[in-house]
Amino acid sequence: MEAKRTTVTLIHNATIVTMDPQSRVFKHGAILIDGDTITQIGQSSQMLHQFTAHAEEIIDLNGQILLPGLINTHVHTSQQLGRGIADDVDLMTWLHARIWPYESNMTEEDSYISTLLCGIELIRTGVTCFAEAGGQHVSEMARAVELLGIRACLTQSVMDSGDGLPAKWSAQTTDYCIQVEYALSQKELHKKHNDTADGRIRIWFGIRQIMNATDRLLLETRDTAKELNTGIHMHVSEIPYENEVVITSRKVDNGTVTYLEKIKFLDNNLLAAHSVWINDAEINLLSRAGVKVSHCPASAMRMLGFAPVKEMLEAGVCVSLGTDGAPSNNRMSMVDEMYLASLINKGREAFLRGTTDATALPAETVLKMATINGAESVLWDKEIGSLEVGKKADIIVINPFSWTMIPLHDSISSLVYSMRTENIESVMCNGRWIMKNKKVLTVDEGEVVSLASKASVELLKRAGIAIPNRMNVI
Amino acid sequence: MEAKRTTVTLIHNATIVTMDPQSRVFKHGAILIDGDTITQIGQSSQMLHQFTAHAEEIIDLNGQILLPGLINTHVHTSQQLGRGIADDVDLMTWLHARIWPYESNMTEEDSYISTLLCGIELIRTGVTCFAEAGGQHVSEMARAVELLGIRACLTQSVMDSGDGLPAKWSAQTTDYCIQVEYALSQKELHKKHNDTADGRIRIWFGIRQIMNATDRLLLETRDTAKELNTGIHMHVSEIPYENEVVITSRKVDNGTVTYLEKIKFLDNNLLAAHSVWINDAEINLLSRAGVKVSHCPASAMRMLGFAPVKEMLEAGVCVSLGTDGAPSNNRMSMVDEMYLASLINKGREAFLRGTTDATALPAETVLKMATINGAESVLWDKEIGSLEVGKKADIIVINPFSWTMIPLHDSISSLVYSMRTENIESVMCNGRWIMKNKKVLTVDEGEVVSLASKASVELLKRAGIAIPNRMNVI
Repeated sequence: MEAKRTTVTLIHNATIVTMDPQSRVFKHGAILIDGDTITQIGQSSQMLHQFTAHAEEIIDLNGQILLPGLINTHVHTSQQLGRGIADDVDLMTWLHARIWPYESNMTEEDSYISTLLCGIELIRTGVTCFAEAGGQHVSEMARAVELLGIRACLTQSVMDSGDGLPAKWSAQTTDYCIQVEYALSQKELHKKHNDTADGRIRIWFGIRQIMNATDRLLLETRDTAKELNTGIHMHVSEIPYENEVVITSRKVDNGTVTYLEKIKFLDNNLLAAHSVWINDAEINLLSRAGVKVSHCPASAMRMLGFAPVKEMLEAGVCVSLGTDGAPSNNRMSMVDEMYLASLINKGREAFLRGTTDATALPAETVLKMATINGAESVLWDKEIGSLEVGKKADIIVINPFSWTMIPLHDSISSLVYSMRTENIESVMCNGRWIMKNKKVLTVDEGEVVSLASKASVELLKRAGIAIPNRMNVI
Repeated sequence: MEAKRTTVTLIHNATIVTMDPQSRVFKHGAILIDGDTITQIGQSSQMLHQFTAHAEEIIDLNGQILLPGLINTHVHTSQQLGRGIADDVDLMTWLHARIWPYESNMTEEDSYISTLLCGIELIRTGVTCFAEAGGQHVSEMARAVELLGIRACLTQSVMDSGDGLPAKWSAQTTDYCIQVEYALSQKELHKKHNDTADGRIRIWFGIRQIMNATDRLLLETRDTAKELNTGIHMHVSEIPYENEVVITSRKVDNGTVTYLEKIKFLDNNLLAAHSVWINDAEINLLSRAGVKVSHCPASAMRMLGFAPVKEMLEAGVCVSLGTDGAPSNNRMSMVDEMYLASLINKGREAFLRGTTDATALPAETVLKMATINGAESVLWDKEIGSLEVGKKADIIVINPFSWTMIPLHDSISSLVYSMRTENIESVMCNGRWIMKNKKVLTVDEGEVVSLASKASVELLKRAGIAIPNRMNVI
């Protein structure tokens, strides 16, 4: 393990979009970083005068933009090797014939390689912190995250019931899940990995979704998460069918959210992914309980539908952004999700009111969702999500002076609508440069790409997944 | 002007996605280019054996992908300097307070610089041919296109009536428009620029939209376009308000398409941009007349609504893809539009049927829209839009072996869902490399970026457009 960083770095001559409570933007700003912490932010000329002698590393950004590292609040790192295995297929084929066979045939090494590959994409798209949506081999994810140098809330995917599960998984009864896999394994994982890697790794608890969870699993998860003071990550109200099953089998008049409220599962440590099919009453339940929602625009458009994002924000729900997994999207890019979030939620108004609303979800709201709301969603907002004195130095450098973003009439909106991953120049996490001048510093990118190509082909073979040709291949 | 290219080039060891009528994909293919024309396509080993002695340039692609150059069928090149001037504002502010002041204050030099900047973005995003949606200074566009080395259908924006026009424009009566601007200027432009730049430039006729066009303008445009054997580019059925105005003022029971049919304007040389608010009867009118539609996913989501793309394709309408202009989108990237087209049209089903349809608009359909349907839309499909013997060599090289596209379980879907502009390695238009190894060869990118930054600030000042701050800038 690399030693804790102690360098003092002064970054000056930058446009700093702080995302702090005052929404301050320094047009000519500077930031001082001591070890892993931001110790000063201010006007460039003054800071340069005051701290030049003190700093060991001085970086002139020539007007480039500094932004807090983006936070991806819903990503399946273990699914990265499955990008492209389930494009243009219906949801049942997606789950039963592609994703579950894929996931249930993953080795620990696959999970490690998949997380490394996903991590490279996260770093290159400006992400410094992510919330794992739930996978199988958390220790391997942790190993990869430690190496990558990013920050993460890692979560095991837990299911103890439901139709169509792979044989290997369905043999696990509730008792087995709760007592062995869940209680032992999740608590064990927490003990072993929580607050490791210089504090960059936290262990969360996972519930795959309500159709794969008994009440006992839900309630024990709730209590254990409270006891250990950590969060719960769960897919909530993804499709109409889910709500129908809940209404029928669990005897409530609405869907998942209504039921989770009834059993007192909703709490401010719950991160609900997607939450597409919820009504106004359920939005209020989420708001009252302080539940956070991860909105995943691309994946929702493709597989689920239009989440009531505007309504949730208006009701005071903390909504953040996620990419979901590679087989659902397929771009693991928060830069694209920001663009999509805005477009989709402007377009959705056409169905609700007859015309789109170009003013819906403006750029500054989208930027909040991708930064400070993300930090709140992963219960880490005291330390990350904005550039403020005392917070951890999770920072991205954006070069806007290229064909993708010129002209720059509106810097803030350009970050959401024009920016592409090409513009992300450097990434710092926990005070350490993990990408600099577009070179990822923590892992050998070429080697990971080559390992991943090989491992993914073997995994598909093992899982018996064959992708049909789309065209006339000769 | 550069001399016509006569080199013989053999590109081998490539995955060639031909987009030909048989949808052939050569897993190990090669292509022979003589001057500006494709003269052979086949298996790599055999072609290498047969043509190595004959070729002056031999390129081993190491398994990279060849695709026909993408065709952007609706782009306002003159609006590139206005990227970011109208984000998150309502449609009337967009048009009256931002776009029209911007456009009516453009100098000829602005138009030239704007087209150069836009052209760099087009080339870098894999576009070899575009249809200008209609701007003011066509000769300057032509000058830029000649330099850029791409292919284009250039169009003057013509309006002869309507409310809210800038003083400079509204002074032009119908007679002035038809007799001076339209008849003289458009015909003159056709005579001067059509079939220039080695045949890369064609001149089309433009109608801005029905609310800014009298019947006389529409009908004279139709007749003159027929006479000169060229196309007409027009914004059609963009917003519900447009249809309402047409119903009231022109006495038909539906909107623009119904009226255009009534006056016999619909024909197979019409390229209708957007066509969002059309009903089933109007879809059939478009299909019967052979009208082509340019679907612009990002711009539609933001400003207009959801076009019935699936229904149009099913009715046999040729639907292609466009980016629209920079103030409406803001990414001028066909790579992103392909991704969006698929997502938006899958998601739209949620409103129509209660759930999304992940099988809607599959990748192969989207690829067709971006290539061969684009060629048909711009009336150029005999020469471009697919990689076939006898067609012009408009080709892009895609490197899929990087973090954005790995693993590559499904090459075809990966081109639509995973590919980003980072993957576009080289671009050939009319047999000439205009980008190679990510370097644009025809213009000095840095110089254009710098000219554009300066010109765009001055243009906004002249037009009196001030963009308010979004955050607390200090």
